[in-house]
Amino acid sequence: MPELLDKVAPRGVELGELARLLPARLIGDPARRVHTLASLADAGPEAVSLFQDKRYEAAFAATRAGAVIVPERFAGGHPSASLLLCADPNAAFSSLVERFCPPPPPPPTGHDPRAAIDPRARVHASAAVGPFAVVQAEAEIGAGAVLYPGVVVGEGASVGAGAVLFPGVVLYPGAQVGERCVLHSGVVLGADGFGFDWRGRSWVKVPQRGGVELGPDCEVGANTTIDRARFGVTRIGRGVKIDNQVMVGHNASIGDHSLICGQAGVAGSALLEPGVVLGAQSGVGGHVRLVSGVRLGGQSGANHSLETPGDWLGFPARPYAEALRRMAAPQQVERLKAKLRDLEQRLERLERAGGAAPEGAP
Amino acid sequence: MPELLDKVAPRGVELGELARLLPARLIGDPARRVHTLASLADAGPEAVSLFQDKRYEAAFAATRAGAVIVPERFAGGHPSASLLLCADPNAAFSSLVERFCPPPPPPPTGHDPRAAIDPRARVHASAAVGPFAVVQAEAEIGAGAVLYPGVVVGEGASVGAGAVLFPGVVLYPGAQVGERCVLHSGVVLGADGFGFDWRGRSWVKVPQRGGVELGPDCEVGANTTIDRARFGVTRIGRGVKIDNQVMVGHNASIGDHSLICGQAGVAGSALLEPGVVLGAQSGVGGHVRLVSGVRLGGQSGANHSLETPGDWLGFPARPYAEALRRMAAPQQVERLKAKLRDLEQRLERLERAGGAAPEGAP
Amino acid sequence: MPELLDKVAPRGVELGELARLLPARLIGDPARRVHTLASLADAGPEAVSLFQDKRYEAAFAATRAGAVIVPERFAGGHPSASLLLCADPNAAFSSLVERFCPPPPPPPTGHDPRAAIDPRARVHASAAVGPFAVVQAEAEIGAGAVLYPGVVVGEGASVGAGAVLFPGVVLYPGAQVGERCVLHSGVVLGADGFGFDWRGRSWVKVPQRGGVELGPDCEVGANTTIDRARFGVTRIGRGVKIDNQVMVGHNASIGDHSLICGQAGVAGSALLEPGVVLGAQSGVGGHVRLVSGVRLGGQSGANHSLETPGDWLGFPARPYAEALRRMAAPQQVERLKAKLRDLEQRLERLERAGGAAPEGAP
Repeated sequence: MPELLDKVAPRGVELGELARLLPARLIGDPARRVHTLASLADAGPEAVSLFQDKRYEAAFAATRAGAVIVPERFAGGHPSASLLLCADPNAAFSSLVERFCPPPPPPPTGHDPRAAIDPRARVHASAAVGPFAVVQAEAEIGAGAVLYPGVVVGEGASVGAGAVLFPGVVLYPGAQVGERCVLHSGVVLGADGFGFDWRGRSWVKVPQRGGVELGPDCEVGANTTIDRARFGVTRIGRGVKIDNQVMVGHNASIGDHSLICGQAGVAGSALLEPGVVLGAQSGVGGHVRLVSGVRLGGQSGANHSLETPGDWLGFPARPYAEALRRMAAPQQVERLKAKLRDLEQRLERLERAGGAAPEGAP
Repeated sequence: MPELLDKVAPRGVELGELARLLPARLIGDPARRVHTLASLADAGPEAVSLFQDKRYEAAFAATRAGAVIVPERFAGGHPSASLLLCADPNAAFSSLVERFCPPPPPPPTGHDPRAAIDPRARVHASAAVGPFAVVQAEAEIGAGAVLYPGVVVGEGASVGAGAVLFPGVVLYPGAQVGERCVLHSGVVLGADGFGFDWRGRSWVKVPQRGGVELGPDCEVGANTTIDRARFGVTRIGRGVKIDNQVMVGHNASIGDHSLICGQAGVAGSALLEPGVVLGAQSGVGGHVRLVSGVRLGGQSGANHSLETPGDWLGFPARPYAEALRRMAAPQQVERLKAKLRDLEQRLERLERAGGAAPEGAP
Repeated sequence: MPELLDKVAPRGVELGELARLLPARLIGDPARRVHTLASLADAGPEAVSLFQDKRYEAAFAATRAGAVIVPERFAGGHPSASLLLCADPNAAFSSLVERFCPPPPPPPTGHDPRAAIDPRARVHASAAVGPFAVVQAEAEIGAGAVLYPGVVVGEGASVGAGAVLFPGVVLYPGAQVGERCVLHSGVVLGADGFGFDWRGRSWVKVPQRGGVELGPDCEVGANTTIDRARFGVTRIGRGVKIDNQVMVGHNASIGDHSLICGQAGVAGSALLEPGVVLGAQSGVGGHVRLVSGVRLGGQSGANHSLETPGDWLGFPARPYAEALRRMAAPQQVERLKAKLRDLEQRLERLERAGGAAPEGAP
């Protein structure tokens, strides 16, 4: 995208002006012009980049970027790049992204005549309904909500004001989506929970008659599924952010402002208190409770309740420091073996000596 | 849902009547009325709850429920709740859910004029086809089957009588779904298996020309994918229950009445005999065989065949007791280190003593 | 499918002719006829099967197949089956599959009148657009490309010539799909990356304004999601093959001809050099780099960069041999314990002897 900033500012932007916008302290030529944003590795002299994570020290040293946004207390320098020192480099870069990157196209408006809207549904006049979307009886779509093409809103389901459902989202009957929620493509809310009892010859379905509710301001990633409850409600709190391909089981409860990374799974009736973080591909067992402030690492598994805030890792999940010790155990086994061999040899020597032990030997 | 039972019985239900319905032995006032169902934690005096899992002892002691269903041989009491003693508390509670919770809306009926049904498809008159569903040439839809909106049934695919396909399910050409199967939204049956041969410069696709068949009475969770075979058939037996986001690879075979929990994966040509259970996020390797009665734990991986029924855990999967010992090993390493330090000190003492050993000592 | 070959050749095919077709050296009766393809376990006398993987030795010995394709240097024999010796048995069998298995139905052609094609979209006359597909403004669909029913191509997105998008694929605005790519049902390209900053009271969305690009000749499995970049591009190289339910995070870069197995996850800004292989259910951490030739095992996790080609296994991922040693460590702990007990007893004996050491003590 060498022409990225040029879409907005065809002749580029002077670093002096960027420094005023961010704001940032500039070390370099204020008249120098930049035209785009890029990562340290991809950037050329026409690009602004970002450096604040030490893992990228080598990339920073080698970058050809025209300018780099760095932390305020940054002490180093750079052979070719100008530096823009900011209190919050990440936020500064985000503001550049927002200011200069082309925004996504505006959402559709109006009720497309090719949508199938049941006459008994209540769709706000200001809501948008795309082609081939389906809104069934007694469903309710709030003011300014957007249903992209192919969305299905089941009977009696509700979509809060300002919520956005990307193409192909499915709400089963009765599912409730809070205001300003964003549901990405392929999200399924309210499919039956997974409950079967073995009755001698076959699995018999445990009826799944509860609901599913998302609080306001949630974002749910593509192809994530959140099941309806057996009875009562599967509840996602307010401001919860869920990544792609996450699975939340029936009757689970996810506390406000929790963060769930990609491909994680939360089994039935699990309870996450507010402010829990689940790493990618992690799992939380059925009926397990995680207290506020628990951060479960990637690929880890909480098969029992975690009652102490902080970082947990591994399967079964342990406090971070303990988990690292556990991971180091195999190497210690090698060292123990060597040590044991040494002790044994010394012991054998003593035994041989003792066997020949003359008078007076202790 | 404080008004849950009230939808059916506005003035609530007397415990005496509930006891007759379940049936249960009541300890408490038969004239007391309850109005809803709730978990132990959520219940108020107007609610019936359920207690049979010891993990909830504290919640049981603290519950404000008006009545609690408990096992027949329950010996304890409760300060405020009446008790309903049942032979099978879980089934009793389910029967209450089914009797009193509002059932899901009835499935659609008729062939929606906005569906795209190929004239060469055979759709039973009693089957339902929702708006924007697609039924392609030579496909067959059985009596009473339900295709919700947006379902796609590919050329020559078949859907058995009474089967239900929720919105957005996709059957690739030739896929076969047994009678009374339930496929939740986003299920994809019959996409190509993952087979590529490296030919010096690039991956060349191994043609995937087989089929995929689901036996009768299967249920498949949202966004699960089951691939077509390379040749022959990827086969799901009868009565198999599969949770959300499960992946079954090409030419795999899942035995009757197996149970596969969420986000588990079964690689190509794996063979599950009847009655296997896979825990959440577990994986079964390619060409691996699990005998009847194997239960693979959550997040575990069977990279070799499991020839003995029972519980298996970990990666690579081991019999349960052995897996627990393996998990305990890191703690033992700590203990071994302490022990070794002790032995070494004692040995040093002996050596020093021996070091004063007279001439001739080694 | 006992009638598989019969669809093409109703009277079956003579082994002599098969041997010419493959080509193969035949050990057996050239006039014998076969009618179908089957696995060793499923095959009857009318079927040709394949044996080249030693894990199937028992199945080979027991097979009732009429003929079996085996490697050229195969030394053994079979009591009943004829043998077809080939330089590349797998390719030979694939060629049979392709020659004799019924090919999938031809893709649809034409622009279905029930599709919603924006007048500002550029759809090539030779491209196919199925019913209920949506092509939004400024989108571009190349020559011969196929959009199956229900596909959504967002504003400004592009689909290369000859690419195939199966039912329900969603391209967010601006997503770019290379020539001849195959995207299976449920694939979502270009949903927002997962980026949120904690601002004291809630998570604030980090704007995701970049794009997503697939090189030519990629195949992407059902329900896989590849997110758009925060800025710049999430880039999938040429000839990359991705299985079902894989997740690729924002700003990740997947090198040419990499292979990613089912349910694997690649976190944000991870960099896979060309020719990397990820096993099923494996994970690659954010900002991690895997060099060319890395093969990460199933269920393994690379939470740090892997700078050496070869097989890696476990969490955290280690070189294969080391990973096996680590897995063996728990058993060694048992042996170490026994050894330690032995040493302790011997030491005690010496101590007793030394402590009481009278003249003449051994």
